[in-house]
Amino acid sequence: MIVMKASATEDEIQAVLDRIESCGARAHPSRGEEVTVIGAIGDREHVARLGLEGHPGVEQVVPILKPYKLASSQLRTAGERTVVEIDGRKIGGDHFSMIAGPCTVESRDQLLSTARIVRDAGGSLLRGGAYKPRSSPYSFQGLGQEGLRLLAEAKEETGLPIVTELMDPRDMEAVLEVADVIQIGARNMQNYPLLTEIGRSGRPALLKRGSSATLEELLMAAEYILKEGNPNVLLCERGIRTFETAYRYTLDLTAIPVLQEMSHLPVLVDPSHAPGRRDLVQSLSLAAAAAGADGLITEIHPHPEQAVCDGPQALYADDFAAYVERVERAADVAGKAISAGV
Amino acid sequence: MIVMKASATEDEIQAVLDRIESCGARAHPSRGEEVTVIGAIGDREHVARLGLEGHPGVEQVVPILKPYKLASSQLRTAGERTVVEIDGRKIGGDHFSMIAGPCTVESRDQLLSTARIVRDAGGSLLRGGAYKPRSSPYSFQGLGQEGLRLLAEAKEETGLPIVTELMDPRDMEAVLEVADVIQIGARNMQNYPLLTEIGRSGRPALLKRGSSATLEELLMAAEYILKEGNPNVLLCERGIRTFETAYRYTLDLTAIPVLQEMSHLPVLVDPSHAPGRRDLVQSLSLAAAAAGADGLITEIHPHPEQAVCDGPQALYADDFAAYVERVERAADVAGKAISAGV
Amino acid sequence: MIVMKASATEDEIQAVLDRIESCGARAHPSRGEEVTVIGAIGDREHVARLGLEGHPGVEQVVPILKPYKLASSQLRTAGERTVVEIDGRKIGGDHFSMIAGPCTVESRDQLLSTARIVRDAGGSLLRGGAYKPRSSPYSFQGLGQEGLRLLAEAKEETGLPIVTELMDPRDMEAVLEVADVIQIGARNMQNYPLLTEIGRSGRPALLKRGSSATLEELLMAAEYILKEGNPNVLLCERGIRTFETAYRYTLDLTAIPVLQEMSHLPVLVDPSHAPGRRDLVQSLSLAAAAAGADGLITEIHPHPEQAVCDGPQALYADDFAAYVERVERAADVAGKAISAGV
Amino acid sequence: MIVMKASATEDEIQAVLDRIESCGARAHPSRGEEVTVIGAIGDREHVARLGLEGHPGVEQVVPILKPYKLASSQLRTAGERTVVEIDGRKIGGDHFSMIAGPCTVESRDQLLSTARIVRDAGGSLLRGGAYKPRSSPYSFQGLGQEGLRLLAEAKEETGLPIVTELMDPRDMEAVLEVADVIQIGARNMQNYPLLTEIGRSGRPALLKRGSSATLEELLMAAEYILKEGNPNVLLCERGIRTFETAYRYTLDLTAIPVLQEMSHLPVLVDPSHAPGRRDLVQSLSLAAAAAGADGLITEIHPHPEQAVCDGPQALYADDFAAYVERVERAADVAGKAISAGV
Repeated sequence: MIVMKASATEDEIQAVLDRIESCGARAHPSRGEEVTVIGAIGDREHVARLGLEGHPGVEQVVPILKPYKLASSQLRTAGERTVVEIDGRKIGGDHFSMIAGPCTVESRDQLLSTARIVRDAGGSLLRGGAYKPRSSPYSFQGLGQEGLRLLAEAKEETGLPIVTELMDPRDMEAVLEVADVIQIGARNMQNYPLLTEIGRSGRPALLKRGSSATLEELLMAAEYILKEGNPNVLLCERGIRTFETAYRYTLDLTAIPVLQEMSHLPVLVDPSHAPGRRDLVQSLSLAAAAAGADGLITEIHPHPEQAVCDGPQALYADDFAAYVERVERAADVAGKAISAGV
Repeated sequence: MIVMKASATEDEIQAVLDRIESCGARAHPSRGEEVTVIGAIGDREHVARLGLEGHPGVEQVVPILKPYKLASSQLRTAGERTVVEIDGRKIGGDHFSMIAGPCTVESRDQLLSTARIVRDAGGSLLRGGAYKPRSSPYSFQGLGQEGLRLLAEAKEETGLPIVTELMDPRDMEAVLEVADVIQIGARNMQNYPLLTEIGRSGRPALLKRGSSATLEELLMAAEYILKEGNPNVLLCERGIRTFETAYRYTLDLTAIPVLQEMSHLPVLVDPSHAPGRRDLVQSLSLAAAAAGADGLITEIHPHPEQAVCDGPQALYADDFAAYVERVERAADVAGKAISAGV
Repeated sequence: MIVMKASATEDEIQAVLDRIESCGARAHPSRGEEVTVIGAIGDREHVARLGLEGHPGVEQVVPILKPYKLASSQLRTAGERTVVEIDGRKIGGDHFSMIAGPCTVESRDQLLSTARIVRDAGGSLLRGGAYKPRSSPYSFQGLGQEGLRLLAEAKEETGLPIVTELMDPRDMEAVLEVADVIQIGARNMQNYPLLTEIGRSGRPALLKRGSSATLEELLMAAEYILKEGNPNVLLCERGIRTFETAYRYTLDLTAIPVLQEMSHLPVLVDPSHAPGRRDLVQSLSLAAAAAGADGLITEIHPHPEQAVCDGPQALYADDFAAYVERVERAADVAGKAISAGV
Repeated sequence: MIVMKASATEDEIQAVLDRIESCGARAHPSRGEEVTVIGAIGDREHVARLGLEGHPGVEQVVPILKPYKLASSQLRTAGERTVVEIDGRKIGGDHFSMIAGPCTVESRDQLLSTARIVRDAGGSLLRGGAYKPRSSPYSFQGLGQEGLRLLAEAKEETGLPIVTELMDPRDMEAVLEVADVIQIGARNMQNYPLLTEIGRSGRPALLKRGSSATLEELLMAAEYILKEGNPNVLLCERGIRTFETAYRYTLDLTAIPVLQEMSHLPVLVDPSHAPGRRDLVQSLSLAAAAAGADGLITEIHPHPEQAVCDGPQALYADDFAAYVERVERAADVAGKAISAGV
């Protein structure tokens, strides 16, 4: 849909019509009293490539079709939603997924004791980072392969499926050995070679929204994975950049119902990274669950004050069971129940 | 607290020390291995006026004391909170306030039928605008005095206290005749003459956060009212400006627990204006209640599709009772119960 | 222009068509292969009030006509621009206006010595605040009427026209006695009673962009003034709220050419408030002039370190002449020359 | 620097002191009348890892030392700046670099004709993308290796050094064959494996600021490259995400002088991607040059309306020589001259 300026001349209008038809699309002009609006109908890709934004006489180009096809709910039967199943745990639809664990795998003791707490409290999956994207090159970058080995051990002992992050396509093989869900961090949301590789792997993916990504861009990133034939994408809101400095990121909970309307994919929330402070995690978790999120991914640690990374935002593992109980009540208000496997 | 640059010379450091002492404050320098940090201790106002941000050798000025005193919880006993009581309805503490009504007072029928529904569903107060701030000078600007008269009639009939907006200090007298709570709109959050007048009136005030106001600025605006001796200020989050274009504003629910920590004042949420879309109002209301908000102010209308203003965001009045029931369950998760008067 | 969802039913489409026609507008549906788009043609106000955003089956409502008429360049001959003339100084078109002075009028000496420097360096107008909007109620709020009296004296002595701020419509009469241009601060950009009064006064207005106002909202605010028959509105960019914390506001220089395209009104830039730091003022001033701004409004002070308000951002008055010279060179790159009166 | 709450108990203060000393740092408490502030002095990394943000009684943690060391100007002699030299072209200091070329390499003709125009107009380097990060997986993703081959040919013929983007560390070898400067796109600013590889390659890097990255984060990303022993990093501002929807990104020109103060690295500006519209490119280029940028990277195309990517923002190649002339005048106002090789 191309909106012409009120001052556009007949020649400028004709040039736009010609340009549209030269691309094999059809042009439908509507001449109003003040402005002319031209619809361009034809192959989605051709129309997208028209590049009319800068043309003389053009005021505005309004795309009508969503640029994401597979992630979109446009072509689905209304209400039909993707439910991802990980080793008996369901995510999406009426199923609420409680994912928890430490930010970073630090040691065997730390990981195993946390994993047992997650399992005992009825958590759905275990999270833990072996490769950590850190703002500073001087910060601890994760245990790498040794971290993956510990995650495998935790899975072996507790039966909990594993969520862990991949940052570098060259580590794919090693991560595939242990990850039931591959996490793509917010900073890598538009790392297209990485998304493509994960798409090709077929492994379920947890895709975090970049801190300044629009919902449309998040769905376009999901599309990179879906396009390779991998249908199991979990979207995850984790806070956006705003002008407010009282907290690290502003958790955007409106994204939950809106993503669920735009797309059939499950929508999780990370209540830990956005505030960066333990004392806000519970309020935000309850809010996310009540708003209808399909799950949470929460950082917990047996001794947060000794954590090598992001300790201030980790819940005390000992408080986790009580936390899960309150989250369950909030999820229930939204009509969902925690799915903790069989 | 003044942080000097690593490259600051001894003379530059001395100049800062002199400047601090010339204002009657005491200067406490701490010389680290790489940088020098200078504390300025003394009268809060004098220190605030030092204006050292641009001085040679100064890297950064970090204010330690909050610039709002009366709104701050710093000087209160931990946990002591303001509870505002409006004609038997309590707002704050464990009391959840359900304020509802039309965006704009349009007609006697519209207002009275809505008011009855609010009362019957157990709402706490009735909202309705007689003076409307509109982005366009060509839009309907409210019924003015006639709107106030209708609000008085609705109060008379239903017993519900009235929340209505004041935009112009010259309308104060008329608004005081009917308003139990005076609303200050987001666009007027920093209209200081207006805040001062409302402070002087002594009437409880509902102060909406400006769409790009930080929490500190919101509390500074509250301070204008409190400073005049009016202790009854209700803070209200209603969505902030972000880069996301999928919705009108991004509702910032992190503001709820953070404001409750920074200040002793009650924190309400407006779930209608942020999304601007009816279908998102319920999710956001449940999220706000679960996050611990002290109340909601929601727009409802008997026939939203015929509303002269903001119809798309108004809930159908007929759905209000069911909505209140779900909100009650979410508020209960956060330990609060609706206060609907005696 | 109403875009229906792909899943919209025939009934939903029909309901939208009916709604449009019930408002006296004409509905033009275009049924594409995937979605239906409906144009609504008719009276601008009626169409604006349709409120179809929330309707079942509606994906998106795209306004085609700009909601500001008088501020818009849509209905002007291309390139025809408003030139405001203040006592011989021209603002707009090829004329660059150099407005300068202290943030706040503090004393006779401070104001008069600054005014002489502005005059001698070839400045166009003198700025100075008598009424100051301050974030804190505990900060100095301006000299008020005494400040206005000093401004009148400065004008008398130097012949420079005066720019000063109005915050409260109740001070209008006093301000009209001395102001050649009435400034509306960023915080009052959407104070509609104030805008309307200034429109009625007929006095030229300098309207600052709110820190989170879109360009469209700025033009809508201008429209409130223009609608009352006052054609002399100067727009002023002064920095917007973003996530960046390295400076107070982010000066949005893209606004200069874009506002000049959207509107025929002159576009000034305030290079002092955005960074809040003296050492950035010159770079930003040169950038604004080179980008084609119609003028600058810059804070200068004889002794910034003693200023009661915003000292850190004021240029030393002694450096002003050299500053003006460099700004002239940058304005020349954009084809403009300073207009300092006859 | 740890600021305690006014309500912090003696025990809470002691716990913080203990925590600091347990990490091998020294604690310096200053007890003010209202609050206590504690300085932590010791190894930068240890202090950074204290994780005191969430501790009971802690109000705020204020880092004093910048987390980037090599990118920082803190430890340099004042005014000492990095000048990167690429085959005789200097970037930084008094040298202004004019980089230009097509967004994407499309064909031999397109690239060579553009390259000749850049050379003839006195451009410094040639840009052109062989690997393109595209929001949509359905968009053209670049010619890949064939694009690199064409860039090599253009370099051979015109003598212009080449700037081209690397997205995937697995393409490093191929890119190193032709790139004189490796570009890191905004979306990959925090792709740490990629930054590390480029650091190891030793090849000069042009690092674009992410659309929501703070200046500090940009410098931390540069630090990843510098830390591997590669001192030749060019920073590049290309527009940030804000609430404004009138343009794609808001070009942040305040970043130029501020980055030049924070760091010794050269600061370039991309005036094409931010607005996304050809008609704004020149104004923004002049503004950037007048603000003191060390160079521009501008998209030009012989036939923008036929470009496969980003045509609307490309200047007509035929207008390039006139554009360069005006940019030179603006750079001259800031005291810089274009460096086009010997």
